[in-house]
Parts: sequence; structure tokens; C-alpha cells
Amino acid sequence: MKKILFFFILLNVISSWSQSKELNLMPWPQELVLGKSKLEIQPDFTIVVHQKITKRIEIATTKFLRRLSGRTGVFFDNGFAFNANSIQNATLEIFYKRAGKLEINEDESYQLKTSSNKISIEATTDIGVIYALETLLQLLDNNDTSYYFPEVSINDFPRFTWRGLMIDVARHFHPVDVLKRNLDAMAAVKMNVFHWHLTDDQGFRIESKKHPKLHQLGSDGQYYTQEQIKDVVQYASDRGIRVVPEIDVPGHATAILTAYPEIGSKDTIYSIERFSGIFDPTLDPTNEKTYEILGDLFAEMAELFPDKYFHIGGDENEGKHWDENEHIQSFKKKHNLQSNHDLQTFMNIRLEEILVKLGKSVMGWEEIMTDKMPKSALIHSWKGKNEGVPQRSSLFLAAKKGYNTILSNGYYIDLMQPVSEHYLVDPLPKNNNLSAIEKARVLGGEATMWSELATKLTLDSRLWPRTAAIAERFWSSEAIVDVSNMYKRLGVISFRLEELGITHIRNRDVILRNITNNQNIEALITLAKVYEPLKIYSRNAGGTEYKTYSPFTLFADACTADASDAIIFKELVHNFISSKGENSKAEIVSFFKKWAVNYQQFNQIEKGSPLLKNIAPLSKNLAEISTTFLQIINSETITKEDYTNCIEQLLQIEKPVEDVELAISKDLKKLAAFLIDTKKVSNISNEYFKKITN
Amino acid sequence: MKKILFFFILLNVISSWSQSKELNLMPWPQELVLGKSKLEIQPDFTIVVHQKITKRIEIATTKFLRRLSGRTGVFFDNGFAFNANSIQNATLEIFYKRAGKLEINEDESYQLKTSSNKISIEATTDIGVIYALETLLQLLDNNDTSYYFPEVSINDFPRFTWRGLMIDVARHFHPVDVLKRNLDAMAAVKMNVFHWHLTDDQGFRIESKKHPKLHQLGSDGQYYTQEQIKDVVQYASDRGIRVVPEIDVPGHATAILTAYPEIGSKDTIYSIERFSGIFDPTLDPTNEKTYEILGDLFAEMAELFPDKYFHIGGDENEGKHWDENEHIQSFKKKHNLQSNHDLQTFMNIRLEEILVKLGKSVMGWEEIMTDKMPKSALIHSWKGKNEGVPQRSSLFLAAKKGYNTILSNGYYIDLMQPVSEHYLVDPLPKNNNLSAIEKARVLGGEATMWSELATKLTLDSRLWPRTAAIAERFWSSEAIVDVSNMYKRLGVISFRLEELGITHIRNRDVILRNITNNQNIEALITLAKVYEPLKIYSRNAGGTEYKTYSPFTLFADACTADASDAIIFKELVHNFISSKGENSKAEIVSFFKKWAVNYQQFNQIEKGSPLLKNIAPLSKNLAEISTTFLQIINSETITKEDYTNCIEQLLQIEKPVEDVELAISKDLKKLAAFLIDTKKVSNISNEYFKKITN
Repeated sequence: MKKILFFFILLNVISSWSQSKELNLMPWPQELVLGKSKLEIQPDFTIVVHQKITKRIEIATTKFLRRLSGRTGVFFDNGFAFNANSIQNATLEIFYKRAGKLEINEDESYQLKTSSNKISIEATTDIGVIYALETLLQLLDNNDTSYYFPEVSINDFPRFTWRGLMIDVARHFHPVDVLKRNLDAMAAVKMNVFHWHLTDDQGFRIESKKHPKLHQLGSDGQYYTQEQIKDVVQYASDRGIRVVPEIDVPGHATAILTAYPEIGSKDTIYSIERFSGIFDPTLDPTNEKTYEILGDLFAEMAELFPDKYFHIGGDENEGKHWDENEHIQSFKKKHNLQSNHDLQTFMNIRLEEILVKLGKSVMGWEEIMTDKMPKSALIHSWKGKNEGVPQRSSLFLAAKKGYNTILSNGYYIDLMQPVSEHYLVDPLPKNNNLSAIEKARVLGGEATMWSELATKLTLDSRLWPRTAAIAERFWSSEAIVDVSNMYKRLGVISFRLEELGITHIRNRDVILRNITNNQNIEALITLAKVYEPLKIYSRNAGGTEYKTYSPFTLFADACTADASDAIIFKELVHNFISSKGENSKAEIVSFFKKWAVNYQQFNQIEKGSPLLKNIAPLSKNLAEISTTFLQIINSETITKEDYTNCIEQLLQIEKPVEDVELAISKDLKKLAAFLIDTKKVSNISNEYFKKITN
Repeated sequence: MKKILFFFILLNVISSWSQSKELNLMPWPQELVLGKSKLEIQPDFTIVVHQKITKRIEIATTKFLRRLSGRTGVFFDNGFAFNANSIQNATLEIFYKRAGKLEINEDESYQLKTSSNKISIEATTDIGVIYALETLLQLLDNNDTSYYFPEVSINDFPRFTWRGLMIDVARHFHPVDVLKRNLDAMAAVKMNVFHWHLTDDQGFRIESKKHPKLHQLGSDGQYYTQEQIKDVVQYASDRGIRVVPEIDVPGHATAILTAYPEIGSKDTIYSIERFSGIFDPTLDPTNEKTYEILGDLFAEMAELFPDKYFHIGGDENEGKHWDENEHIQSFKKKHNLQSNHDLQTFMNIRLEEILVKLGKSVMGWEEIMTDKMPKSALIHSWKGKNEGVPQRSSLFLAAKKGYNTILSNGYYIDLMQPVSEHYLVDPLPKNNNLSAIEKARVLGGEATMWSELATKLTLDSRLWPRTAAIAERFWSSEAIVDVSNMYKRLGVISFRLEELGITHIRNRDVILRNITNNQNIEALITLAKVYEPLKIYSRNAGGTEYKTYSPFTLFADACTADASDAIIFKELVHNFISSKGENSKAEIVSFFKKWAVNYQQFNQIEKGSPLLKNIAPLSKNLAEISTTFLQIINSETITKEDYTNCIEQLLQIEKPVEDVELAISKDLKKLAAFLIDTKKVSNISNEYFKKITN
């Protein structure tokens, strides 16, 4: 009853989405009522905790006060939260019942209520408190004279219990501090699983005390010590985040075999892989030593990772070395294993037995889902339509078969696609044909950050802010699908991630300064706002263009998906065309004017360099086509010359240069078609026109 | 003989400083001969090591290749150095004799020779090799079509063996990654001692296994685990850097006493200090438990820190609580200790005995230098003229008395002074009156970074690039004192530190984005280039304006010493005046034009905020005075109105606003005086004029 009062007896409430959607919350809360008053941030802002101050609460409240003070410049009298018995009145009162457990289906809900002079947070667990504090920080607003929290009443809880982010630290190593700041960012958007992809062909990143050759020979010296792993796991736990380790076997195992060639399926010399892709080295599932080493390793890992789930990979094993190995072939016959897939299942079941003894449940990429796989396994669905099967087919199949399962297909954040594409992928879309019990087996999903092309300099800009939108998909109601509102909120969330140390914004200019040798980078910034890195796998076709030690300080590395000016320009063009040229013309012209002088500006960079020379065409192409558009958009008649130039330049800008592509090329095409359609054009053959409109 | 050939038989050499000073090397090498050819960076660039590849060499060569590839965008065929037996021809050949020891007076010299197709490095130790690789990276240059190393022959070695940087992690905690990137920066400018100020009134930052209350109660949860300390020490060692820990006693000990009040000199409740300054809490030197706890702690530390030296602080003990304590007073009488200074010496000698047993030599701030202090102690000279004694007096006194000694007075990098002031402080200036043996006792110096006002967000911008100039003072010949050339080189060194992860440049805009709520920061950038944080201790007068948890995200935190536009403007004004107005006028006018519109630009920031409002006067003042100067500089006659405005505005801009001051105010005064002197001014009383010229 108290709760009902808490949420619904609010005077002067305005509950319409039309007003509340101005709030820059992400993930969007389940229930929100917006009031009219506000609470101003003053130096006497204090927090009281009506319960034991757990380490989680201590860290969360202290960090909250630092962030609030940092944002507002308000000098607080008190820098730490108080216990209930040590203070009478507090601005923010926190009530919770117990420490949260790091397991699936834990209660992560919270209630947050702000009024003109009081804030209260109620939650079952201290994890709920963390989320409430993050929501509260997202609510901060200001006018000319003060910073304040608007009056709200929020009741919030997650839609899915598994809201994960996988980071691949094998293809490029990401040191502890990089992981920690990303754990902070995860907590800020209420994600609760860090899936740590620790081994792959390009590196084995864990210190093994039982088999030290693994990290000594398999990592180029880039690995986490066991103490560092404990530190990261604790750091995650303090933020309500579970950590699931992945040891990828039997494929993706070149680094393991570099250390222990004797458990490989081919008698050869292995060395750490420098390229990307799918490689042949594979563990030998018929060799007892394979299970000895993995058993020892799993036992070591089980000590470091308290989480129930243990990811054994299992993806992309093509079994080429198995086919070439006579002993393995005869083993298959002897054990009546029809296919390599059967052989892998044989191995998986052995590994599952080892893990069960260690108190763990096995988790693996969808390839592990075979008839004999125990139903305690968690199936990680990742293949999409591209593989000839409908999206999410393995997810639904797993749920129907009785497995718990999570979705990553659609959330491959490293592919540099617009965030809108990820955002609209729902693990449980309407009309999913699953029964209630089957639906409950779909635990959620994980964004996956493969790092073939991401170093510690650029990792954050590949992950953020786009991962926040995926986090919203996992947390918020399925009804929250307004893409344009999502983009608006994401802009604010993005900037706020800076205070957690996320480097996605600041590191762009670091790269541009390197390219220009610390000369004026203005021209390059303009370009970085409209060019995007090549998408999907086209930047590194076949995995052979880049080695792990290639430079990742190129212009493409300064660019990001969802190039900021491109997003604005796209909308302007849409407005312009749909209003038949009545709206947005001035803004479009102003963009063209800026771009038209870009090449001139670019050439004013005094000292040239090969890096600059390589990207000069990007500037030249943009300036030329913008000049042409300026001519066309401002004249009544399009001359044949302008027309021809436009067509040729449109074809020109479609070609990738230096691993980037112009993010507005489709919009320019649409705009050209519209202009040609509405203006006088004479003496022009149809042929050209076709080229544009197709 | 081989060495003589190596250095002097160079065809086509040009050895004049006039040419070589164009190189952006820092610290400047002892001997350098510049040639005419160059070696272009190509994909087949390879390194061969003609000796065992030590961990140091492995890390240094790998990092060298990544940095070279990152700067140039060249895709190298090979990402790692080769052993001599595994490759025939290499671009860069490395010869060295043995692993360097981390002790004073180790051989850190190297010879570096580049030609059109070959680079060779020769050194006695692998530490010399590290320095050679850093010099080589500093030599990198480029033209439009290629990146290259110019032909040089360098013979280099340090002037001083102790080239240190102290970082205070007590006033604000600086996590491991912050320290690591600063260790990288230190190595890049050939510094070799990291003095780790680990404890103070505001925090005890070390995990103690024997006395865990120390870090549990004395650190707010912000401390280094012993594993992290080992990690940092190893990281430093891998870069040729010694680590000297400091446990500051008997004063600066509030954090220790928060955990163990029973060893304090006053029966009271202690709590971690939040302000800055000199505080009363002091360890009780008459209590055996003091030596028990410190003895245990020193023993733990001795295991973690292999360096011979152990810093016990000893500074700023005013003994107030000693005076108030009857037991301590009678102890003094009983032991015939005349003064508190004698009592402290009594304690220091006991601590020295403990440390000697642990194989350590004691090091302490100059206050520890009393008659009874053993000559094995190292005296850290820090007091300056301000204290009523001539600068370096304790340094020379120590050397004369027979102590090894280092200088920090003049190198307090946290005071936000122009780097030129630090740069010209020489530990051993000419006419120092020391004998040869006394001179040899002056081991070098340390820059000291006290962090009352520096958080992990801003620490780097307080340290860099200015510390690089101090590093040059410690390494290079005393004859290298060209301040203007130093500033020129420092600009390049500064930018290059970015590739090591140093955040001094990138974090400025992070702060400005926070102030503007992610709106346009151009107006603020302009301001940050001419305003500087208040110097010496005036930003935090009495240590009471800021607490440790106050916001350090203010405009002053975005500003730095040696504001970049101020440096340029200063030189322009100098040129203008000394050429009697013939030179630099256009550039000066162009600055005034930019500044004159700043307030307009500032007000275009759409959404206001308290943080913006606070700094609005900075913009307004600059714009107004610039407008006035534009009027004056362009007219033949100065009107009374302009004159009056100018005087008033000059007085106005001298006043600090929001903890910053206008770095060009002296130059504006000079310029005003010159203009008034050279232009027609009518009806103006002398009174005003005096105000300016004084």
C-alpha cells in the first residue's frame, strides 16, 4: 500500500510522454511520472543510508557525490554518505533490504522519487540502489542560475536479466584500466554481464600458474595476472556486474597451441596468429592431455571467476586439421561419431563434466547446441540471416529445446553499423511463437565487441555511445522504439560518459593531431563528421589487410559509425524533400558552404605528410560535390555542366578511400534526384538520370 | 678507436648548432652531429638485437615499432625485434653489453648513428638502449611523401644520475594506469627516478598486510594493493626507472593516526584530513609502538621496493602536539634533547637503524639533516629563498657536510609557474664554491608534483609538458639554456606525449564540454589559451578553499601554466615594441580581433548555467580590453575615452576571477605604455599614466 501511495499520490503530476520524453534517460524507465517542482543542488546536499553501507553502496554513493559535484561545480560540505544513526536530515535517503547476489533473475528493481526538498531511493538490493543513483544523475538539469533534479516518481526494473557486453581482449589486448572504465560505463546504462573473451588465435591473455607456458608463449607479454583478474572481477561485482570468462575451444586456439603444440590436431609448429579470420589450428579432442591441460586451466579459472557460467566458445570450428589427422579419423569411427560436429560434441560433453565438477554451468556459442548437449548449457545465439538461417533461429530453437539462451546476432557493435539497426533488434519480438515457458528461457542478450580493428586508443569509440542503445533494448519496455528520440537522448548520454573516463570523444582529436603533425585539425574534424569507417567486414576484407600490429591511428580510426553531421544532414534532406523544398534549405546550404571550402582549408595545413596526402581525396571530393550542389540548389536551371559534374561526383564519392565512406552519399543522391526533378534541366539524356535514381 | 671512427668519420657532416637546433630533441644530447642524408621508413623496417633480448629490450623495441607505425601509418612486415641469429639484414641494429642495474651512477649512455640505409645503437646497458630508441623517435621527421630519420651521429650520457619525478598520491589518489602512463612519459624524456609520495595527512595509500587498519581506515578505500605496487615497480624497472617510496613521518601523519591513534602525540580522535596545509597530528617518537608499527611497515615495504633508498619524509613537523604532551616533554629532558628538532633526530636515527637492517639507506627532506644524522642519509633539498635562506643552501650544505643530496627547490611543478623559471634552475650553477668531491655528492634533482589541486583528470596537464624541460636540465649540458629554443622544442615534445596516453591536451576539452553542457566550446578554448590558473599557493589560500572532494572540473582546471596564445602574444608584443611598432602589428591586431568577439561568441552558447555564468567576466573583460586596444592601435590619436577605458580595463583584468588570471596582462600593460608613448594623447593627467607603468 505504501508503494502505491509512493507512486500515485503525486500532486501536480504531468505524466504525458510528450513532456517526459524531454528527459535524457537511457535506458528508459518502466514507469515514470514527471512533476513540476525541482530540487536544487546546494552545498548541504547529503546522503543517508538506512541500512548497512555495503562496499557497493559506499562506492556508488561516493562516486555519485563526486560526479554531481564535478558536473555542477558545487562544493559539497560532505563528501561521503552517512549512516542513518549519524545524521538527522538528509537530501537523499536510501532504503534497501539486502546485498544483491550476482546471479540471473536477481531483483534489480528500484523506486526513485524526487520532490522539491527530498529524494528517496527504495530497492530490494544494493544493485537496485546503484541503478537508481545512475538514473538520478541522468535526471540532472539546469537553468542559468542552478542545477537541479526535476520532480519525478520512477518505478523501474529490467525486462531481461542478462544485459551483457562482450569484449575481445585477444585480437588486441585491453589493459585493466580500459576494462574498468568500460565497466563503469556499463553500470551507467544498467548492463550487468561482462563477457570476457580471453583467448583466441591472436592471444592467450590469462596468467596460468599451472601451465605458465600458456601466457608466456601465447600472449606477447600481454596478459592479465591472476591478481588483475581478481581485481577486475571485484570491480565489476562492486558495480553489480557479473563476469563470464570465455576460453574459446577447440578452434580459435592458435595461441594455446603456440604454447602446447602437443595437444594440437596437426604435427606442426604453431605461432601466434597476426591476421584475422577463421584459422585451422584446433585442439585434439582425442588426446587425454587436452583435457588435462584444459581441466587444470578451468580449475584455476573457476577460482578466479565466481560466476556460475563458464563460456567455452565452440564457434567456427571447421575441423580441417581433424580431417587431415588419421588418428582422429579412426577415433571418430571407433566412437561412432558421424561428423566433426559430433566429435566436437563429444569434447564439449567432456568439458561440461569438468565444469560441473567445478560447480559451473557451460555456456557456448550456438554451435555447441547438439542433441546430446545437456540442457543445463546456455546457448549463445550469434549467427544471422547471412548464414542462410533466419535471424534468431538458434535463439528460438534453443528456447524450444529447453536451453536458456541469449542473443548476440544483431548486436555486433564492432561492425560500425548505425545504432538504429542494433536498437530495433528485439530478442523477443512480437509474434515470436514461443510459449511462456520458452520465452522465459530467453534471458537477454549481449553486445559483442570483437577487437580486430580496435586498440585501447579506439575501443571506446567503437563501443560508445551505441552500446547504450543496446542496453536500453535489454532493459526497457519493448514499446520504447522511437529511433529519433533515442538518437536525441543518446547524444546526451554519450557526452556524459566522458566523466567516467570513456575516451570515445577525446581520442578523435588525438588521432587527427597525429595525422596533421599537430597542425590545425579543423578541416579534418569537418571530414570526420561525415565520413564513417567501412562497415561489416569490408575494412579488413579476408582479415588480411590488417595485422594485429598494423597502425590503428589512421583517419578511419578517428571516424565513427553514426557520423554526427551526417545524422543531421540526413534529416535536413528528408525535411527538404518531403516539404517540397520549403524547409531546411538554409541549413543544407550552410553545410554545403562549410564543405565547399574544406579542400582549401585542408591545403592550408602547412606541412604535408603521407598521412595527409592519403586522405586529401576525401576533402577534395567533398568540396567539389558541395560546390556543385551549391550551384544547383541556388539556380533555377541546372546547366548541363553542373548536371554532368554532379553525376560524376556522386559516382566518385561512393568509392571508399582510405577505409572510410561518405555517410551522406545516399542523401546526396536523393537530394540530386529531387533537385533535378524540380528544376529546369535541358539537353540532358535520360541515361545520366538513371544512374542517380538507381 | 672504433668509437672514434664511429663518431667522427662522417662524410658530409654539418655540425653547426644553427642547423641541428631545428631538431626537436629533449633532453638535448651531449654530442650531436647532423648529416645530410636520410633513412625513409618503409614496410620492411626491421630491428635486430646483437645480444639476448631482455624484457626491457623486448618491451622497448616492440613499443618503438608500434609508435613508429602509429605515427607514420606505415604497415610493417615485422612487428617485433629479431635476434641476431635469425635474420641477415636489419634496418636498426642494437648492440649492448649487459642489463642495466637500477642504482645510482649506472651507465646510461648510448651512441646512436643513422645513415641513409642503416641505424645503429650502441650502449653499455639495456637502459642506454631505451634512451637511444627514445631519441630516435624524437628524430622522426617527414616531408610530403615520406617519413624519415635524418642522418645523425649522437653520443649521449646524463649530466646527473638522479633525474626524478615525485608524485603525491595522498592528497588525491592516482590509480595505477595514471602512474604507468607517467612512467612512460618519464622514460621518454630520460628520467630515471619515480619518487612515490605514498602517505600524508589526506591518505595512506598502501595495502599493509601486517597492519591492515592503515589502508582500511586511512585511505577511503583508495590504496594500492601490494600486487599493484609490485606491478608498478616492475613497470618502472622495465623502463630503467627506480622507484623510491616515501612514508612521511612524524608529521603529515593524520591518515596513519586515523588507523592507530595510540601512536599519536595527543589523546584525541583523528580522522582523515580533507583540507591542505600543515597539520598538528604527529607520531609519538617516545612510544615504542610507533617503532613497532613503522618497523613492520618498513619491512613490508622493503620487500616491495628493491631500491636502496627509502624516503621517510620528515618535513614540516612543527611539534605542536609534542609541546602539549607532558610525557614527551619529560622524555626530552630525560634524554637531554634540547629541541623538537633534536627529538625528531632521535626518531630519525631509530628509523635509520631499522632501515639499515633492511638493507636500505634513508632519504628525507632537508629537515632530517642534523648533526647526528649518519652520512649515509640522502638529503632532499626543498626549501627556497622564501624561507629566508638562499636557494639551494641546504643542497650545498649537505654536499659540504658529506651527504649525497638532490634538489627539488625550483622544481615544484604543481605551482603552475612558467616552465622557463624551472628550466633555468641548475642544481650546480657556475660559481658554486663546491669542491670536486662535494659536487659529486649533488646527484641531481626531482620535480615534485603535489596533488592538492590535481586529480587523475588533470594531473597530466599539471606535469606535462613542463616536466620535460626539467628533465633536460638534469640530463643535458649546463650550456643548454636557450629558453626560446626550449619552448619551441617543448611544443613538439608535448604533442608527442599524447601517443603514450598522456592526457594533458585531450582532457582540456572534456572539462570545457562539461562547463558548457556539451555546447560549442570554441569561445572557452580561446579563453583557456590566455588564462592561467593562479600560481604558487594562491588558488587555495591557506589550504581551506578546496577540500580533497571539492570539484576539480572548473575552468581553472582546464587552464594550464604557459597558456599557449599568451606565449605567442608575449613575443609579438616584445617584437612590436622593440621594433618601434614596425613588426608584428598585424598578428597583434588579429589576436585582438579574435578576443574582441569572444564575449559575443560566449553569449551565443544557447543554454546558460551557473558554471558558465561564473566565468562570463573572463570573456567580457578580455573582449572589452581587446576592443579598446583595437581602437587605440589603429588610430593616430588616443581619445580620452579610450585612454580611460584602457587604464580601467587594465586594472580590471589584473584581478583574478574564478581562480584564473590573464596571462597577458603584463604584456598588455607594456603595449599600452608603448602606444600611449608613441601616439598623440591629449588632455590626460599624469596620474593615470603612472598607474600603468608601475
